[in-house]
This record gives sequence, structure tokens and C-alpha cells, in this order.
Amino acid sequence: MKFSAGLWIFGSSADRFVASGYRKPTSTDERIRLASKVKDLQGVDIHYPSDFKEKDVGRLKDLLKACKLRVGTVCVDLFSDARWMNGALTSPDEAVRSEAVKIAKTSIKLAKDLGTDQVAMWLGQDGYDYTFQVDYGVSWDRLVEAVKECGRYDPSVKIGLEYKIKEPRTHIFISTVGKALLLVNEVGLKNVGVIIDVGHALMAFENPAESVVLLAKHNKLFHLHLNDNYGDWDHDMIVGTVHLWELVEMLFWLQEVGYDGWYGLDIYPYREDPVQACNQSIENIKLAAKFIERVGADRLRQLIRKADIARTIGTLRKEMSRHL
Amino acid sequence: MKFSAGLWIFGSSADRFVASGYRKPTSTDERIRLASKVKDLQGVDIHYPSDFKEKDVGRLKDLLKACKLRVGTVCVDLFSDARWMNGALTSPDEAVRSEAVKIAKTSIKLAKDLGTDQVAMWLGQDGYDYTFQVDYGVSWDRLVEAVKECGRYDPSVKIGLEYKIKEPRTHIFISTVGKALLLVNEVGLKNVGVIIDVGHALMAFENPAESVVLLAKHNKLFHLHLNDNYGDWDHDMIVGTVHLWELVEMLFWLQEVGYDGWYGLDIYPYREDPVQACNQSIENIKLAAKFIERVGADRLRQLIRKADIARTIGTLRKEMSRHL
Amino acid sequence: MKFSAGLWIFGSSADRFVASGYRKPTSTDERIRLASKVKDLQGVDIHYPSDFKEKDVGRLKDLLKACKLRVGTVCVDLFSDARWMNGALTSPDEAVRSEAVKIAKTSIKLAKDLGTDQVAMWLGQDGYDYTFQVDYGVSWDRLVEAVKECGRYDPSVKIGLEYKIKEPRTHIFISTVGKALLLVNEVGLKNVGVIIDVGHALMAFENPAESVVLLAKHNKLFHLHLNDNYGDWDHDMIVGTVHLWELVEMLFWLQEVGYDGWYGLDIYPYREDPVQACNQSIENIKLAAKFIERVGADRLRQLIRKADIARTIGTLRKEMSRHL
Amino acid sequence: MKFSAGLWIFGSSADRFVASGYRKPTSTDERIRLASKVKDLQGVDIHYPSDFKEKDVGRLKDLLKACKLRVGTVCVDLFSDARWMNGALTSPDEAVRSEAVKIAKTSIKLAKDLGTDQVAMWLGQDGYDYTFQVDYGVSWDRLVEAVKECGRYDPSVKIGLEYKIKEPRTHIFISTVGKALLLVNEVGLKNVGVIIDVGHALMAFENPAESVVLLAKHNKLFHLHLNDNYGDWDHDMIVGTVHLWELVEMLFWLQEVGYDGWYGLDIYPYREDPVQACNQSIENIKLAAKFIERVGADRLRQLIRKADIARTIGTLRKEMSRHL
Repeated sequence: MKFSAGLWIFGSSADRFVASGYRKPTSTDERIRLASKVKDLQGVDIHYPSDFKEKDVGRLKDLLKACKLRVGTVCVDLFSDARWMNGALTSPDEAVRSEAVKIAKTSIKLAKDLGTDQVAMWLGQDGYDYTFQVDYGVSWDRLVEAVKECGRYDPSVKIGLEYKIKEPRTHIFISTVGKALLLVNEVGLKNVGVIIDVGHALMAFENPAESVVLLAKHNKLFHLHLNDNYGDWDHDMIVGTVHLWELVEMLFWLQEVGYDGWYGLDIYPYREDPVQACNQSIENIKLAAKFIERVGADRLRQLIRKADIARTIGTLRKEMSRHL
Repeated sequence: MKFSAGLWIFGSSADRFVASGYRKPTSTDERIRLASKVKDLQGVDIHYPSDFKEKDVGRLKDLLKACKLRVGTVCVDLFSDARWMNGALTSPDEAVRSEAVKIAKTSIKLAKDLGTDQVAMWLGQDGYDYTFQVDYGVSWDRLVEAVKECGRYDPSVKIGLEYKIKEPRTHIFISTVGKALLLVNEVGLKNVGVIIDVGHALMAFENPAESVVLLAKHNKLFHLHLNDNYGDWDHDMIVGTVHLWELVEMLFWLQEVGYDGWYGLDIYPYREDPVQACNQSIENIKLAAKFIERVGADRLRQLIRKADIARTIGTLRKEMSRHL
Repeated sequence: MKFSAGLWIFGSSADRFVASGYRKPTSTDERIRLASKVKDLQGVDIHYPSDFKEKDVGRLKDLLKACKLRVGTVCVDLFSDARWMNGALTSPDEAVRSEAVKIAKTSIKLAKDLGTDQVAMWLGQDGYDYTFQVDYGVSWDRLVEAVKECGRYDPSVKIGLEYKIKEPRTHIFISTVGKALLLVNEVGLKNVGVIIDVGHALMAFENPAESVVLLAKHNKLFHLHLNDNYGDWDHDMIVGTVHLWELVEMLFWLQEVGYDGWYGLDIYPYREDPVQACNQSIENIKLAAKFIERVGADRLRQLIRKADIARTIGTLRKEMSRHL
Repeated sequence: MKFSAGLWIFGSSADRFVASGYRKPTSTDERIRLASKVKDLQGVDIHYPSDFKEKDVGRLKDLLKACKLRVGTVCVDLFSDARWMNGALTSPDEAVRSEAVKIAKTSIKLAKDLGTDQVAMWLGQDGYDYTFQVDYGVSWDRLVEAVKECGRYDPSVKIGLEYKIKEPRTHIFISTVGKALLLVNEVGLKNVGVIIDVGHALMAFENPAESVVLLAKHNKLFHLHLNDNYGDWDHDMIVGTVHLWELVEMLFWLQEVGYDGWYGLDIYPYREDPVQACNQSIENIKLAAKFIERVGADRLRQLIRKADIARTIGTLRKEMSRHL
């Protein structure tokens, strides 16, 4: 497993009540340096244009090298500026839509400059809050067309669409694994796929393992964001602190489908030290992976095939409790 | 609008605590007679094989005729018998899967005999409850194959798949509009589409209007089940008693996309008189439709295009309050 | 820890779709015999009047003795008969309310006959489904008065009120730990307290540990029902299969507050063998308890006092992974 | 009905993704001037110390007078500064707790200076995010003691505690109407009561009308915050845009219990013009009130007493559709 972390983790962690953040602000460079303190971290996920500009690429590469990190994913930031508030790719304003596509294309170009072939798009502002607010059909068409245009821009760069059911809009268009895959199928480009954010899956009442398998079957599982929550909201908590069994199951299926991409941390440690929160997340993931190893993939496959859930539960527990 | 009602509405309305039902049991014939008392009802939705057998077709047709009703949809019952408890089309037991397909085919045949070209499949037992319980990929393949086989059986009969995120399983495979449409696309048959149950949409945090438009865009909106709930569970309440604005918006979009199918009632009046509950549901739908007429589809389109939500809210309210 | 199990676990496990149940029906005696097969079980929870009548007491006592079981709690059944559908203690019909109180009193008497001083009341039908359906103030007064009357009937028997936010009503009056404790305080009798059903707590977005402590502080934690779910609904799953950390934390706090009552299983194994499902539940609870022992209560107290959550998470994981 | 509005409505409306806000920042004075443009607004709710300092009182009074506004409630801000991140009244740090009480007392004093006898306390940071994070019993005691101290500081000023189940913590201690009332009862002071935020009630799956009645029965309904959401989160939407029937019912019961306090707007118009959003909210509330008047309180009381919900639904609809 190769781990990456979103640079936002090392920011000031604002919410709407403490808009100035729970910690003092940090520059992108400071965030990279903080990331380098996380044990076992190999990559960082970075937003364009909010984290860096074209001119920063050289400096970033040097710094990353010095920090023994590389860029996992360049994330297209089409949400953190107020101009996107009524949507980026689906904005009623054509100029806004064009600008959004332009930024996406630049992100794709810069991704290659930064040495990665992977771009993430989370279209968090593309949605609606109220009934009678948007034309759903027109919006869907705009999504398909704009993503198509981005995908065609450079077929050698993979674009992963990250779905989320709500926040910051009360309803986001690309909401669930089903809709994400539907959209991607309509776009119909080999280099356009889906990113699973485990917390987003959980808050849409998906079982992350099932969503992993569904995407992998369609060769569309491009990337992974890891965090945890209570199934109710995108709390972006330390991985494994709530849904331990779901984490174990998802890691099992990631192995089964041969996932060889990044294990990207996407937590939001409002009140915790970011480096510590990342360390705990990675260690929890490793625990889950070690547990699978201990039980054995063959045995897990057999248990599932036998379809006797009480026995499966018993086996898993025995393995966990063995030495307690 | 042509209204139909599920015959289950007129049953004894059991739940797990009052498994014998809140009312005394009724035969299928009695249910049809009760349905005939609902004002403005033109059709009934009936389950095979739980509501009738092959030999009953003649009698049913006579009775329906006498009651001035026709069959809207024949619903394939692959959930109410304990043999389906680990899935029908995705059961680990091949014999169960075959039996399920056989029943589906018979339903298709009987639908034609009963004078309708519409069959509904709600695969409520096809899912899982626990982690590590099923092989998601195998299950998906089984779904695709089995639905394909059903769809090919008689291309002149439309099969609508009804999605639901949970209940009776904690997780159902065909869970959301996105996954339903994805599955239907993979099946790839013209006569296989999707049924929206408004309550199922709401409990998956979908806005029914959006799901209507998405399905209609793909020519896959085959049928409609109407009821209401609090967004938390499939309470199957009287239509329009909670989500009034969502109902209005959905009716508007149904008109816009030219939906000309049934408006099927799927409520579950545990503690209410079924005929009254249906009457109130239909009247509430008509109120919503009248309201749209009053505001005017043109004006609604304009309001949406102008994308000024405060103004839209104001206009809708003014129209509603006009004569209060 | 002394474990009991609700006899309903060994019933046919109906839901509204399979109202006849997922297994064949069992008599009360058969259920007791099945319960006796559960490893480490010392007690059963039994409903009056649905599980037994006055005349059955002698036979039941003999059977229980032969099975080496005793009665943990007599549960007042004021929900499984259609006559309670509009409420038992808050029914608009005075005759129904009187009948409900009478049954509660008989339950209290029979509890003593059966050798326990503990009665459970879950008022699942006392609530409402729709807006404008009930007078909330009148209902609250009726609850307080009726519970008071029951409590005064025999001060030597403890009555535990079990809260639940919904099902079978869309809204139940005694919904949360806060409202349950508020009601109990208004009743003001030493022998009237609260039962926590862990699944009910979770579905009301309570952390069971917090609710345990709150009740214990007020000397009102009378009994415990154990099961699990996804935080969304009362799925009554095998204990520890979803919320493992919450289970561990709750067991820790139960120890801290000196809880010495029953650990009552309240699962609903629709598709599982009831004996196996109970066994797995008990073993999972024991694993959690063993884990606490391993970490050490002193150390847990210290960790909480130090208020460094990343460190706490790390310590817990290390202890869990130690020998994996 | 007298309407007030929180000054935060007229701020920049930040969220964690657009931490700088969807609009440009405004000073407190500008916010008051914006508030004065809202039709029918008589009061504003203002936070101490974030909105003003002691020295500003004179200027504020002059400005408010010029704007024909008065202060409805002074809200104690114990959440918007990072120092409260681990709790204000329940912080593990005694110095933080003392500072919080001190600010609360100053707020009470300044409330009187500003001509109101009403203070609001929303303890949004007092809670926890993870299991094993806090000692629930100690926290509860700290809450009771600190609120008691605040309440005793000036018995002529009413302190309303505003409950909320989550955000910004994943779990807040004062979470539901039941726990709020329980706490207030333990504090045992006449001038300490509860504030209902309708959106907070909805997201805890309370029916606001029921919570209004419960608090009023105990003479503890001190204040009201109005907004709307989808029952899932505190979206702080324009009033009446989702839960129209619940709004109507709540207004009815507010009349029934003789509520004569403020109708305080607490919306968060991220993407809407704040003045317009307030206007629409007030107009929607007025529509609901007009509707009650039209139906008649007597008739509503009768309908509820008759306990025939289908008939009630019918009557309400007929009245609404009358002139459409």
C-alpha cells in the first residue's frame, strides 16, 4: 500500500463557526513539510489553483523531492472560490462554465508537470439547495459535455470524479457511486473514472466494499480517499475509528480486485494535530490489512462463499481475539 | 393523470410487531372491491404469485371489469416468501435463482393475459445485512444476467425495476436511481427500465424530481409509485403529507418530460382506512397538479431559468396564499 | 456479566413483507428450550400477555428450572395487538388506556410470581405518524399519570421504560434518553427507571456510553438491551458487528458506573439461526470486555483524563493489534 | 408575531470549503443596516463578544434606534474562537471554563444595557467527536454547575439554552429537547430555559410542534429560532421551503400554548441575498399563520380530538386548495 495525504489536512481546518480555523494558517510549503513528518507517507494530493500556480511547479518539485514525497493527485479546485457558488461545470453562467473547464485543463497539464498522471475532480458546488432551483436535465447534459471535454484534453491523464451526496450544497449532482458510474459511462472515455471517498460512500449509506467492487468491475476505480464518520455526514474523522469492520472488508476487496493505486488520506483534523491524525489513520489501516493477512484471503473467500454469516462473524472474532 | 393502487394497500397491513396485521385479512377479490371504492381510480397493481394464480386470471378479469378497473402493473413477488430470504435473482442457491426467473417469466405472460404490458420487479431480498456476507461482483453479474433473461422473454412487455436502498435487507443491491439506471444500461434491452417509488427516492436522499428527469432522459422511466415519508424510512404514508413542495416539483417535471404512465399509489395505511387513505392521496396529488396549472408551466420554466431562488420561493408562495 | 435473551429472538422473525415469518412459528416453551441451548445464558425476557397467561406460571417455572434459566424481565406487551394501534397509555379511548394499565399491573404481579423484580415497558404504539394527529400535552400527561399508577402498584418491582425514537410509529413519545429520563423524573418514583436498548440509542444518534452514564448518574439505569445496527434503523443485528468501538466504550462505562444488572440480548435474527446469533452476540460482548481488561480500566481513565484523542486511538489500536 | 433576525444572517456566510465566505465581509453596523431593510423586522439577535464589545453599547443603541430595531436576544458566543474547541463550559481546562462563565455573565449584563432581558447560549463546542474522548459524567456536572452560576448571576435575565445534536462536534452534549429540559430542571432556576431552533429539532428527528408543547408545559420555552432543512443537517434554509406542514402545526401550537416571545430568524443564506431570504422566510411564516386563521383554531382542536387523521388531512387540503 502506498499512502498519500491531502495537503488540506495540514491547513487551519475551518468550519462555518470558526471560519478562521482551529489552527493557524499554513502555506503550501509548510503543509508539504508537515506532510513529510507523517510516517510511511509517500505522496501528497494538492489543489490547483488554490494551493499553487503554474509558476510554483519548479519550486514544489524541489521541495517535494527534498521531502521524499511525490504528488499523488492534482485536485481541480472548482469549489473554494465564491464564483463557483451556483455550480462550476453546471453554472447557469456560460463564462463560469468555460472558466471551470479551463482550470480543469490547466490542472491536467500541471499534473503531468508534477509527475503524476492522475487528476481528481470533486464538483461540490454543482448541485442545488431548494426545489425548483435548477433544470436537472440541462445540468446533467452540461456535466457530461464538460467532463468529456476535460477527458479529451489529454487522454494520458486519468480524471477521477469524486462523488458526494451533499455539502456544501444540500444536493450534489454526482451524488452516489451509481450516478458517478452512470455519468462516467456516458462520457465514455477510458481515462475518465471515479474516486471513492469512503466517508462520502458511508454518508450515502453505501457499503464502501460494495462500491469498490462495482467500480473495479467497470475498470473505473481510479483513486481512494480514506476517512471515517458516523454514516450521517462527512466528518472526515481519523480512519478506522468508527467503521472498523467496513474498513477491513473494503481492504479485502481492494486486494481482491487488484487495486494498486494510492491509499489517500482525506481527513479533516479540526481539533487534532494533523501529523498525529495521519499517523493514526495509517496505523489503523495497517492493522486492518494485517488482520486480513492473518485470517487469510482464501479463508475469507471461502467464508463468503459458504454464506453462513454467523459462522463468518465467529471466525473473524476468534481471529481478532486470539491473543487478547 | 390515470391513477392505480397496489392491492396490498387493502390488506391487513402487518408490521413485525403486529404480524397478524392492523386490520383483518382480506382476499384478493375483496381487495379489488375495496379498490373500486376509491374515487378516480382506474387501475390496480397486483402481485404474482401471492395475489393470484394462473387459474384465477379469468375470474380476476371478470371482477375487474365489473369493478371498472384494469390492471396497471403485475408485480413479480420475489420477496414475501421465506425461500427468497437470501436473495431471489442473486441467491447463492442456483435452484432458487432459476425458480425466481421462472416466476418472473410467468408474471410477464400473465400480465399480457390480464391486459397490461407492464411488469414491476422489486428485488427487496437481493442484498445483504452484514459485512463479509456476499460477493458483490458475483451478485451484480447474477442480477444483470437474470434481468436480461427476463427482459428477453417477451420484448413486448416492459419490465420496471424498482430500486430501494434498504428494507427488508439492511442493504439492497438495486439501491438508488443511479445504480438502477446503471444496471438497466448494462442489461441493454429496450423493454427493461426503472420504477421510481417516491418514498424510496426520498429515503435515499434523492429529490424525486431529479430522479424523474434523469430516468426520462434515458427513456427509462417506466412507472411511478407514490407515497410519502420523513426521508428516513419507507413509511409509505399518505401522499403529500410531508413533502408537499417535492411533490409539486415532481409533478411539474413529470409533465415536462411527457410522462404518460400510471400514477400508482403505494401507501401502507397501517392505522387508516385504506379507501380513505387512497382518496386523500389522490386529492393531494390533484391539489399539487392544480397548483402547477395555476402558476403555469411557462412561468415555472422561466423561474428556473432565471435562477433566483428567493424570487421563485416568493412567486410560489404568493400563488399559494393568494386567496387564503 | 449475566446474560439474558428475549424469547422473541427464537420466534419466527416476521417483517411486513414476510408476515408469516422467516422461520416456522415456535411456542413459548419451544423458545425457552431453544434459549437453553445458548452458551452462557442465564435468563430470558418474556412478554405478558402474548407469551404466557396467568395459568402458565407454574409450568413456565418448572420448564425454566429444568432449562437452568430464570426470568430476567417480564416485558409488558402493549404493542403487538391491533387494539393498541392508536396508543396504549395515551390512546384517545379511555377504555383502552385502562386496559393497558391493568395489563401492566398484572405483568408486575406475575413478574414476582416468576421470581424477578424487574418489568420492562416499551410503549411503541404511543406516538403519532402525521402532523396534526395528536395533542402532545394531553399525551404527555397521560403518560406521566399512567406510569405513576403502574409504579405505585408495587414499589418492590422495578419498572424500566424503554425509549425508541420510531417504529412502529413514525414518532414515538418516549423517544430519547433525555425524554425518558425527563418522564421518569416527573413520575418521581424510586422504582421507575429507564432501559437502554443500544440499537435504539444508536438510531437516535446517541452514543450508548453517554446515555449509560447519564442514566446511571440519576440512578435510573435499570436494564440493558443489546444489539447493533447502522445508526439508521432498529435492525436488531448481532451485537458488535457494526459498532465495535461503541460497544467497548459502553462496556467500560457500565463497569465504571457499577452496573450489575442483566446484559439482555435483543436481536432479531431474520435470516440467522437464533441460537447461533445469540452465541455470536455473547462472544462479541466478551471479546469487548476482555479487551477492556487487557487495556486496563485505570489506563482508560487516564487516557480520557489526558484528553489527547490521537494518543488514545493509538493506545487502543496497539493493544488490539498486539499479537496480530 | 414579532420577528427578529440573527445578525450572522447578514455576514459573509462561510463554510469549510469557502472559509472566506460566499459574500464579502460586513461589519456589525452594516449588518444592522441590512437587517433594517427586512420588512416587518423588529429585532436583531447579536453575539457577544464577537459582534460587539462593552464600549460599543452606546453606539449600537443609537444605530438600532435609528434603524427602528431593538435587540431581541444577546447570544453568548462560546464557539467561534478556537480556544473553545474542546468545550467552553465543559473544557478540560479550568481556566477556559472560568473564562466562558465570565463571558456569559458579561453577556447577561450587556443584554440589560441593550434593553433586553433575554440571553441565548448555544454550547456548540461542548461535546465530543470520538469514543473514549470525554468523561460524560464529569462533563454533565460541569454543565449543570456552570449554567447554574450563570443563571444566578442576574435572575432578572432569562437564559435560553439552545440544543443541537451535532455540528461542529459530531456529538454535542445538549443535544435534544429532552436533554435540554432535563438539564434545565437540574439547574432548577426560574430564569433558565430552552430555545428551540426548528432546524435543530428537525435534524434530531423531533417534530417541532411536539417540542414546543413539551417545553411550554414546563414553562421553559424561552425563545424560537426559525429555519428549515431536510431533516438531515442544519442547512439553515429559508423558512417553510421544506417542512411546510410542520411549520403550520408548530405555529398552531405556539398559539395554543400562548407563546408571546420572538419569532427569531436563524437562516444562513450562503448563496442568497440575506434581506430577500429573510423577507421570504417571514412571508412564508405569515402564510402559515394565515392558513391557521383560515382553518380556525377551534376546528383544528376538534380535528385533533376526533383523532381521524384521514379526515384531518382532507380538511386541511380542502382549505388550502379552496381557491386554487
